[in-house]
Amino acid sequence: MVQLTPNPSFSVKLRIQGPNRAGMLASVVEAIAKVDGSLSTIDLIEQTLQVSVRELVVDAYSEEHAQSVVKAVESLPDVELLEAYDRTFRMHQGGKISVGGQQPLETASDLAMAYTPGVGRICRAIASDPARSYELTIKGNTVAIVSDGSAVLGLGNLGAEASMPVMEGKALLFKEFAGVDAFPICLSTQDTDEIVETVKRIAPVFGGVNLEDIAAPRCFEIEARLRAETDILIFHDDQHGTAIVVLAALKNALQLVNKDLSQIRIVISGAGAAGMAIAKLLRAAGANTLVICDSKGILSSQRQDLNAEKQVFAVDEAGDLADALQGADVFLGVSAPGIVTTEMVQSMAQQAIVFAMANPIPEIQPEKIRDVAAVIATGRSDYPNQINNVLAFPGVFRGALDCRAKTFTQSMYLGAAEAIANLVDSSELNAQKIVPSVFDARVAAAVAEAVKRVAIAEGIAHISD
Amino acid sequence: MVQLTPNPSFSVKLRIQGPNRAGMLASVVEAIAKVDGSLSTIDLIEQTLQVSVRELVVDAYSEEHAQSVVKAVESLPDVELLEAYDRTFRMHQGGKISVGGQQPLETASDLAMAYTPGVGRICRAIASDPARSYELTIKGNTVAIVSDGSAVLGLGNLGAEASMPVMEGKALLFKEFAGVDAFPICLSTQDTDEIVETVKRIAPVFGGVNLEDIAAPRCFEIEARLRAETDILIFHDDQHGTAIVVLAALKNALQLVNKDLSQIRIVISGAGAAGMAIAKLLRAAGANTLVICDSKGILSSQRQDLNAEKQVFAVDEAGDLADALQGADVFLGVSAPGIVTTEMVQSMAQQAIVFAMANPIPEIQPEKIRDVAAVIATGRSDYPNQINNVLAFPGVFRGALDCRAKTFTQSMYLGAAEAIANLVDSSELNAQKIVPSVFDARVAAAVAEAVKRVAIAEGIAHISD
Repeated sequence: MVQLTPNPSFSVKLRIQGPNRAGMLASVVEAIAKVDGSLSTIDLIEQTLQVSVRELVVDAYSEEHAQSVVKAVESLPDVELLEAYDRTFRMHQGGKISVGGQQPLETASDLAMAYTPGVGRICRAIASDPARSYELTIKGNTVAIVSDGSAVLGLGNLGAEASMPVMEGKALLFKEFAGVDAFPICLSTQDTDEIVETVKRIAPVFGGVNLEDIAAPRCFEIEARLRAETDILIFHDDQHGTAIVVLAALKNALQLVNKDLSQIRIVISGAGAAGMAIAKLLRAAGANTLVICDSKGILSSQRQDLNAEKQVFAVDEAGDLADALQGADVFLGVSAPGIVTTEMVQSMAQQAIVFAMANPIPEIQPEKIRDVAAVIATGRSDYPNQINNVLAFPGVFRGALDCRAKTFTQSMYLGAAEAIANLVDSSELNAQKIVPSVFDARVAAAVAEAVKRVAIAEGIAHISD
Repeated sequence: MVQLTPNPSFSVKLRIQGPNRAGMLASVVEAIAKVDGSLSTIDLIEQTLQVSVRELVVDAYSEEHAQSVVKAVESLPDVELLEAYDRTFRMHQGGKISVGGQQPLETASDLAMAYTPGVGRICRAIASDPARSYELTIKGNTVAIVSDGSAVLGLGNLGAEASMPVMEGKALLFKEFAGVDAFPICLSTQDTDEIVETVKRIAPVFGGVNLEDIAAPRCFEIEARLRAETDILIFHDDQHGTAIVVLAALKNALQLVNKDLSQIRIVISGAGAAGMAIAKLLRAAGANTLVICDSKGILSSQRQDLNAEKQVFAVDEAGDLADALQGADVFLGVSAPGIVTTEMVQSMAQQAIVFAMANPIPEIQPEKIRDVAAVIATGRSDYPNQINNVLAFPGVFRGALDCRAKTFTQSMYLGAAEAIANLVDSSELNAQKIVPSVFDARVAAAVAEAVKRVAIAEGIAHISD
């Protein structure tokens, strides 16, 4: 049975009070360990000669597991449980972002400049030269995170309201990692025409749009049409963000096993937004042998059920994922939990590279192939080599906004991937470290710099200093 | 010629360096005074035995005037002008608002809760009970400021981009005065159906919508349809915000002249969004004799050109604004600069009340009727009795969001007006002080409290504690 390890997403915070005596805390720690809770932090809140009040954070692997941790502590004879709460839910109370002022508003004079009558002068300046909205409004640094809630994380079609926490989280990452102001736009429609229309109508506010969690193949048309019909930056993170980070990680992994991108056989499992974008970017980077599998097997030219997007990558061979993996050098999974077996990995070429990125449960648990594959990556933070889009999208937008790029191009994505790969110095590069940490502060700046450099070289930047 | 007095909206900041000797600053001050610049602040930035560096803020009445101030200082023999800039434009560089995090994002554990995998739990919770989006996302505290740019301030149809500075300013006021997170949505369409449709599609993100600077009569239909077709709060500030503050000010003005709302003749100049809403709210408050004028004169039942909105207020009499004002007790102007003469005010009843609220140039300059009218108000901050919507909208939304009111009602607006009026204590009430200061910190809380109280009494609040 595939199961998560205890992790912060199911963590609880417990505030406990007990007699201030030796062994007291030990009994609590022991009770938590007995039910497999993973204790992460302990704070001493207050202490008198008689009692101690402490706060404990305990990671669990499910809500039920978290409950069993709470019960275990509660049942200790001398311990009083003052409070227990789910940290993830608590963190989301009231939402994760807010809109604040960049300017003080303390005096009548502030008010007269920021609002009437002074603001009228700015309105007139923009009316006579609309491009000045990039300079005199938030537009130049602001991105809409647009979703129709049709493919929320790996959870499926949950709708607009339920997609909000993801889009707010994304906005938080945009700000934290690259200083981009991003705002969630979750749409109550899942109709392609209506989505395109709506984004076009709200475009005056934004310098760019990050499409997110929109189901394939609809997402391809929406992106293409918005690119053609608006004059702002359009990016679909599930496609391009993922593709950039996969390419970056793959470059470093190939260096480790001493193979060349153009010579190897790459199998991609998953022909949704991510899978197709990975295929396109890898091809642009020089990959020659790409075999893509969807739930029905290899995208084969013998199949009659392929849409236009998939037909582009149809190959002569046919079969299922196991067939595809025979002798393959690289497996890139953006599909479903547990669909790859150890035997399938054993059938791959020597020095196999396996990126099992289905979230939160990978295509194969890394433990099973530790001795089989040369390099393993997942989408998770509790294993080495986390393939996380946050390495790409903040810097990609930062760079494009800074130089006011007209559009995004594959060359910009190739530049971004190379910048990420290069941040892992050859001295530290090893099978456990093929991508930089998401908290490596150099990442967004390096990606931004690369994107900007390519945009300027391609002549699509408005600002080139 | 009607002209503005020097004010902060045209202010410049000058950084000057000159010999550190007596009389130096005096020569600068004198030079500014000579060209009628209004010096507001002087800061000493640094000083040595030889030189002083100072920053001066000078208000002007136009851009040309501001330029003449700069030239006057520049031409002084011993003074070096190190920098001079337009403060209003400088304040708008990069826009006035930003999107920030409510939550830290410093550790892998923060990331695992705010984003994948933890965020998936929140998505699922909302998917199974969408109302929880009020609690677990920004929805419950977030308002869209929606404009089509068709009636920007008094400047006319400037379009979406040019309306942005106003909407950002509004967002700033929402946050500063009432802690509401507001975000500008400026639409590239001015079609009623498309506006309604677009707002409905983005509604999942917002707890309310503040319509702004949308031309009449379109604004009425948009508001009515959104009220009927969405389940979030819909408010049109140009209508209801203005009406609330006018009613509040009028209550106090009437108290001063000892007249009764039900007994008096009120003339409203302007039959756009503000004029019509003022008429409706005054009628709800008990006013019986309302005469409204548009640019063609009195809304008379004899006219054939009145739309449905205007017909409701058609009266038996006919004539122009001057005719309407004969014997009137109150003039409420939300129309155009300089259209009222001293003679017209002289023709009004004894103890006339004149609210000349056209912005930035009122229907009549207060100086002209100082000895004629008993109480005068304008929309400007440089005269007493500023009728400013900021007294209303932040608190109105605060109250409605806090109790999760289903909708806004006229009773809530009446309650808000009364709360504002009551904040001017009878001991301080006089002809120069009929409304509280916009910086009176009690205002938003009092308005919120009143709105909440009415909503609960009317049974339209989801939360009633």
